[in-house]
Amino acid sequence: MAKRLAYVNGAMVPESEAKVSIFDRGFTLGDGVFDTARTFNGRPFKLREHLERLYDSLRYVQIDPGLSPEEMERISLEVLEANRPLLGPNEDYWITQQVSRGLALKGPATVVIRCEPIPFAEFAKFYKTGYRLIVVSTRREPPQCLDPKAKTISRLNLVLAELEAKMVDPEARSLMLDLEGNVTEGQGYNLFMLKDRVLVTPGSRSVLKGISRATIFELAADIGIEVVESDFQLFDVLNADEVFLSQTSRCLQPVSVVNNTRIGKTVPGPITNQLLRLWSDKVGVDIVE
Amino acid sequence: MAKRLAYVNGAMVPESEAKVSIFDRGFTLGDGVFDTARTFNGRPFKLREHLERLYDSLRYVQIDPGLSPEEMERISLEVLEANRPLLGPNEDYWITQQVSRGLALKGPATVVIRCEPIPFAEFAKFYKTGYRLIVVSTRREPPQCLDPKAKTISRLNLVLAELEAKMVDPEARSLMLDLEGNVTEGQGYNLFMLKDRVLVTPGSRSVLKGISRATIFELAADIGIEVVESDFQLFDVLNADEVFLSQTSRCLQPVSVVNNTRIGKTVPGPITNQLLRLWSDKVGVDIVE
Amino acid sequence: MAKRLAYVNGAMVPESEAKVSIFDRGFTLGDGVFDTARTFNGRPFKLREHLERLYDSLRYVQIDPGLSPEEMERISLEVLEANRPLLGPNEDYWITQQVSRGLALKGPATVVIRCEPIPFAEFAKFYKTGYRLIVVSTRREPPQCLDPKAKTISRLNLVLAELEAKMVDPEARSLMLDLEGNVTEGQGYNLFMLKDRVLVTPGSRSVLKGISRATIFELAADIGIEVVESDFQLFDVLNADEVFLSQTSRCLQPVSVVNNTRIGKTVPGPITNQLLRLWSDKVGVDIVE
Amino acid sequence: MAKRLAYVNGAMVPESEAKVSIFDRGFTLGDGVFDTARTFNGRPFKLREHLERLYDSLRYVQIDPGLSPEEMERISLEVLEANRPLLGPNEDYWITQQVSRGLALKGPATVVIRCEPIPFAEFAKFYKTGYRLIVVSTRREPPQCLDPKAKTISRLNLVLAELEAKMVDPEARSLMLDLEGNVTEGQGYNLFMLKDRVLVTPGSRSVLKGISRATIFELAADIGIEVVESDFQLFDVLNADEVFLSQTSRCLQPVSVVNNTRIGKTVPGPITNQLLRLWSDKVGVDIVE
Amino acid sequence: MAKRLAYVNGAMVPESEAKVSIFDRGFTLGDGVFDTARTFNGRPFKLREHLERLYDSLRYVQIDPGLSPEEMERISLEVLEANRPLLGPNEDYWITQQVSRGLALKGPATVVIRCEPIPFAEFAKFYKTGYRLIVVSTRREPPQCLDPKAKTISRLNLVLAELEAKMVDPEARSLMLDLEGNVTEGQGYNLFMLKDRVLVTPGSRSVLKGISRATIFELAADIGIEVVESDFQLFDVLNADEVFLSQTSRCLQPVSVVNNTRIGKTVPGPITNQLLRLWSDKVGVDIVE
Amino acid sequence: MAKRLAYVNGAMVPESEAKVSIFDRGFTLGDGVFDTARTFNGRPFKLREHLERLYDSLRYVQIDPGLSPEEMERISLEVLEANRPLLGPNEDYWITQQVSRGLALKGPATVVIRCEPIPFAEFAKFYKTGYRLIVVSTRREPPQCLDPKAKTISRLNLVLAELEAKMVDPEARSLMLDLEGNVTEGQGYNLFMLKDRVLVTPGSRSVLKGISRATIFELAADIGIEVVESDFQLFDVLNADEVFLSQTSRCLQPVSVVNNTRIGKTVPGPITNQLLRLWSDKVGVDIVE
Repeated sequence: MAKRLAYVNGAMVPESEAKVSIFDRGFTLGDGVFDTARTFNGRPFKLREHLERLYDSLRYVQIDPGLSPEEMERISLEVLEANRPLLGPNEDYWITQQVSRGLALKGPATVVIRCEPIPFAEFAKFYKTGYRLIVVSTRREPPQCLDPKAKTISRLNLVLAELEAKMVDPEARSLMLDLEGNVTEGQGYNLFMLKDRVLVTPGSRSVLKGISRATIFELAADIGIEVVESDFQLFDVLNADEVFLSQTSRCLQPVSVVNNTRIGKTVPGPITNQLLRLWSDKVGVDIVE
Repeated sequence: MAKRLAYVNGAMVPESEAKVSIFDRGFTLGDGVFDTARTFNGRPFKLREHLERLYDSLRYVQIDPGLSPEEMERISLEVLEANRPLLGPNEDYWITQQVSRGLALKGPATVVIRCEPIPFAEFAKFYKTGYRLIVVSTRREPPQCLDPKAKTISRLNLVLAELEAKMVDPEARSLMLDLEGNVTEGQGYNLFMLKDRVLVTPGSRSVLKGISRATIFELAADIGIEVVESDFQLFDVLNADEVFLSQTSRCLQPVSVVNNTRIGKTVPGPITNQLLRLWSDKVGVDIVE
Repeated sequence: MAKRLAYVNGAMVPESEAKVSIFDRGFTLGDGVFDTARTFNGRPFKLREHLERLYDSLRYVQIDPGLSPEEMERISLEVLEANRPLLGPNEDYWITQQVSRGLALKGPATVVIRCEPIPFAEFAKFYKTGYRLIVVSTRREPPQCLDPKAKTISRLNLVLAELEAKMVDPEARSLMLDLEGNVTEGQGYNLFMLKDRVLVTPGSRSVLKGISRATIFELAADIGIEVVESDFQLFDVLNADEVFLSQTSRCLQPVSVVNNTRIGKTVPGPITNQLLRLWSDKVGVDIVE
Repeated sequence: MAKRLAYVNGAMVPESEAKVSIFDRGFTLGDGVFDTARTFNGRPFKLREHLERLYDSLRYVQIDPGLSPEEMERISLEVLEANRPLLGPNEDYWITQQVSRGLALKGPATVVIRCEPIPFAEFAKFYKTGYRLIVVSTRREPPQCLDPKAKTISRLNLVLAELEAKMVDPEARSLMLDLEGNVTEGQGYNLFMLKDRVLVTPGSRSVLKGISRATIFELAADIGIEVVESDFQLFDVLNADEVFLSQTSRCLQPVSVVNNTRIGKTVPGPITNQLLRLWSDKVGVDIVE
Repeated sequence: MAKRLAYVNGAMVPESEAKVSIFDRGFTLGDGVFDTARTFNGRPFKLREHLERLYDSLRYVQIDPGLSPEEMERISLEVLEANRPLLGPNEDYWITQQVSRGLALKGPATVVIRCEPIPFAEFAKFYKTGYRLIVVSTRREPPQCLDPKAKTISRLNLVLAELEAKMVDPEARSLMLDLEGNVTEGQGYNLFMLKDRVLVTPGSRSVLKGISRATIFELAADIGIEVVESDFQLFDVLNADEVFLSQTSRCLQPVSVVNNTRIGKTVPGPITNQLLRLWSDKVGVDIVE
Repeated sequence: MAKRLAYVNGAMVPESEAKVSIFDRGFTLGDGVFDTARTFNGRPFKLREHLERLYDSLRYVQIDPGLSPEEMERISLEVLEANRPLLGPNEDYWITQQVSRGLALKGPATVVIRCEPIPFAEFAKFYKTGYRLIVVSTRREPPQCLDPKAKTISRLNLVLAELEAKMVDPEARSLMLDLEGNVTEGQGYNLFMLKDRVLVTPGSRSVLKGISRATIFELAADIGIEVVESDFQLFDVLNADEVFLSQTSRCLQPVSVVNNTRIGKTVPGPITNQLLRLWSDKVGVDIVE
């Protein structure tokens, strides 16, 4: 039976053999970056935008991957093609490029490209029920220490937040504030809130500039909803008309409860629903189903 | 010819085969911790203190290593013994335990224990010349994001600082401030300054509680030098009588220049020298040689 | 002779008997919220907007008032009607709803609704002379501690500021900065400044979203003046063309001096005047008179 | 049947009639302060120290209570005597003085003195089981806004924290950090941790200077345990040997869990136990029983 | 041979005799402000805007210069005329007004107006090569201490930053962050970055509101490029399409390297070039030549 | 009649001719440092300590004065000797060294040494009445911008604070907080408070390490009063037993009022008095007289 393959430093290897040295700085220092796109019906979605962001992250951490963006794209597609036969019906892949600085400060870099089936079963129900978010004590790390706009593999800050949220409810997700108490993001997602028919999302100071986030900017424009990037606080989230999160694998999913407070009147809210349908149309996949 | 061995998840393997999965959260998220002791004349130094700190770090990040401290110590010594035959004269080992959360949030953890020869040649000269430290723009990350007292593998914050210092001088090392502008530490070392025969070192708010740092507390007591843990700033460092750093591999080494300013009258300063000699006596090794 | 009545937990009582238990958490912990609308010619102005904000505050502090917004509005109007006979000519009322958590963490809530004649005599002259604002040392409390957007009854922070301003001049009012030194608000008012025909007012991060503030957004639109919500600092206020404050009871009143510096060329400035006249027209009351 | 009495502005009244005006600034603005002592076997404990702290708080908020400390003490004792007949066996009282600014900025102040039976049944079990503390997102408010050393009645900041902790466990209590991420206090208690036979407690920057806290300083001195006031962080608490809290009603009680982490080896820890026994001896009451 | 003249407290004197008392508060306390315009082909450029800013600075520091803006302008032009004969071909002047508080807190102020030839030779090459900017450790001082919008003569904060940058490269210039890690400015210049055909520059919170900066707003509008004032961070600068600085003497000059990272594809970038040409046209001088 | 002389860049000149160029960076950029000692009965007091601090400041700002400390001391004494004949009975001098970077970033430095009679008449009464301190809105600038431990001539931050205090009372002095709300210092003085027979003064993070401050450490030791360097806040000052300030010219003077609150029971307090008498004895001058 066939096995999924991954690209590791120039070679295609079965996932079970896809490994990196215990001395790799990615493993010992979190010294690297990554990015993850997904497919719809097996077709990569905005892969180029994801790769641009990958190279932005690389520039920030001063790692030379030894591959041009075009080569990185080509190999990513090769990995996808190699694993396509293993995709079942209604399945889709994440495609991830990860680059660490390698064994020494001077490199050469370690480059890994991998495919993983998106675990729809784990999160499908939240399209209906919405997530519960818990505002946690751990603060999102500030850009003068490590910029959240860089998708690095030093992510323990986000993991600690997630562990806090799970204390309240194993299915809850964490919502992090920055050091000034502004709402930022949680592990893997960007947050949007709708108030008086305006969508508001945190500016890029303390959050990743999500590709799905950018997609929502486009979709909102299509339905005449203004999107504003702005600082806001828990008070605003609790009193929003609708709240949802955006994330590569999930596109967008509603938030039904923040801490102890129910958000809005229905879950998902009408604009959330409209955006989801529009996105589904755009990629030819019924995202919720 | 014999090869060094490492312990990886229960097995002793040659270093060239010592690898972790590309899906390991240590590699993808920096989701793990580690600690590193060293030997003097092949004998481990304060291994137990290092292991205690390892378990403190584990508790902070809520990872269960699946091994008791006693087991971790036993295996560490086994790894050391297995590699001892490869130690040359005047050589010594680092002994590192690294634990990541494994493949999933629930674990099980990945445990790696490894030995590496300390590269004395790379840093021996600094006992004589002293280091140049550069105060960098990147700030040490605050404890409400990720506590510097935990020796985690999400260390990119420290790497970015180091890259900044190397712009000025490839042999310079970074000195980081915290968000309030207090002096903290640099990658791999704690800082001490002597002023009017009192040693001052940053409190544990924004620095690792180094085992070598603790050793200096003991040695200073032996020679009647008071040690104070306190916030201080660049102004104080520039006007100190002596400045040195402590680090597992190097014990302690003088600092001769901070930014553009020469520190003290001689390098190393008299107290720095005295502490170094005392430490050498204690471990039966001439550290400088 | 008739006496004013207030609503206290279900009953209409004369003000002199309108009391709450010394064990009420509103009195022992400042554990509650309130909101205050006013009448013009005896007609309530934007009562619904005030009630919406009241319920936003309630949601933030997780107090269930035991009354729907509609019931709260109905009773508010009943209180107004009950007290209307006591209104003299050229008099108007404040209408306040105050809700505390009651005697225990679980409630039930204490609900008070009251009317008070607006003391025009106390502040009428400032329409002509303008206020003196003093920038005080006490900082407006940050949203990660207690959000200024919630109109809570834990208001000692604002009172301390007011006491500081009174040291300089008993008629002066305090102007508070936030922790980063941005201009925020003072007890009971929002601040606006005009520069090059653009009105600027602090964003909602550190200030109450005043209903009068929102009214000025509308009036300014009517006369083609852009309003921008933005951070600004004392430097900007000192060099503004006009400065005024907005407040439920006063609508808007000019500021003539900030610390030691006279603002603008005339008091009130031309745009301030224009806005005041427009507001007067809108409510059919000459506000200044 | 007899009823408890309270002192309200000069009069002794039954508690059910002990009320303040809905216009009192204590109720409308949280504009006041209070302090609470307790009895052991019906005898007040350190009442004078509590009153001194009350007058420190009054000075900070610039309220003149209209009574000298001696008068305040005398009336407090009268209230206690008036209610003593209602004390059952093994019962004790809280004695609280609360002063608000009254009806106007200029006063006169409202003074309330009351007795309440301490609800031992609610918290007795925690001497055995220890508390679970949850580190919450809401930060303790900073001294440049409203100093935590003043025991004011603007306490909503603390209530919001408590509501957060209850999300995890209705019996959990909140542990708050300050804006810099240092451990502070929770509603009603001070925190102590023991590490290597040294007791550490936050300095007074962001916490109330508890009278029980001061008592522990004395008791610790009696058994040769050093007490240090110092900043520390969650990392330190998780790795402490023992953690306990001090509080007027409870004296001191162990903490068994912080977030998800068990603290120490036994609950209560040996030093915690020793301090409790010593305190019991001192006041002639078996506190745990 | 003729000598340049300066205005000092009412008198025109040769520069070599243009002096202030060693007791002048400008010299002993940095207690004063200044502003500097330049000429193109000997004609002053936006002198009035510079003088307006001078008076804004004066108002902020509460210094009365003893001269109206009109008098200040007249004398400035007189100084220019007096020195015009000394201007060579292709030369231009800086015109600086500096006002200190004088010998005492109450003044009278010291007023100095001077002309200096712009040292084109020193910086001409950077139109071609672009500058290297170094992000330094010293943070730009916050507005609640001393507002960067006021052009004061307490400028040591900027000098310290510049000394840091020179450690890396004697021709590099410093780029300062504010206390929150946002990009601000360096000594004497404002920063712009272009991303996706939008120009972004820091808002006025932590930077001088440069007159050249305002000129770029106008020029950008002429070529249909939107300009946005916004917080941004090093990550954004490293990934910008073009970066340039604006400065009175240089108008605008490209930035080619930030820390270790090359910016954009060509130096100067196409929009930078277009703006430079437009400015040249506007003032009738080929700025680059 | 004889005139006072000052040293300016190598020459002794009458004060009226003691001037620096309008291009001197000390005048244009506040780019320099200074220090000021005083005499008692015409004898310099701790001149060497002042010079050490001057050289600490010079090292911090990287200015080479071109004179060794010994030369600086010798010339200072020569300036004193030159001016001694002009000292009246009961008069004493300030001796100030001021060094600016000169005309260019590379220097050479400008060195000024001057004598000024201490204006005892201006402040003598405050030994009896005590000062009123006003806590101002302007915050003391943080060490990561410009370290308050360096006695620089970029002092506008302190001047702005002083202007604020004078709004309340022309004889009041400013008391500044740091960005975190801790008490620091005011223009020209350090603050001490006495509580329970312990003297507390801010640590060196945000204040100048005054020589008079150090003298008080010595005097307090002589009378068995412990001195602690620690952060504290306004709350502590308002509730202190005694408060006084230390300053080169005044030695120490009591504080009687802070904002609106009287401090302590008598002015000066008993310990303040004792320290003053001790200092007088030590220098052989009745300081108060």
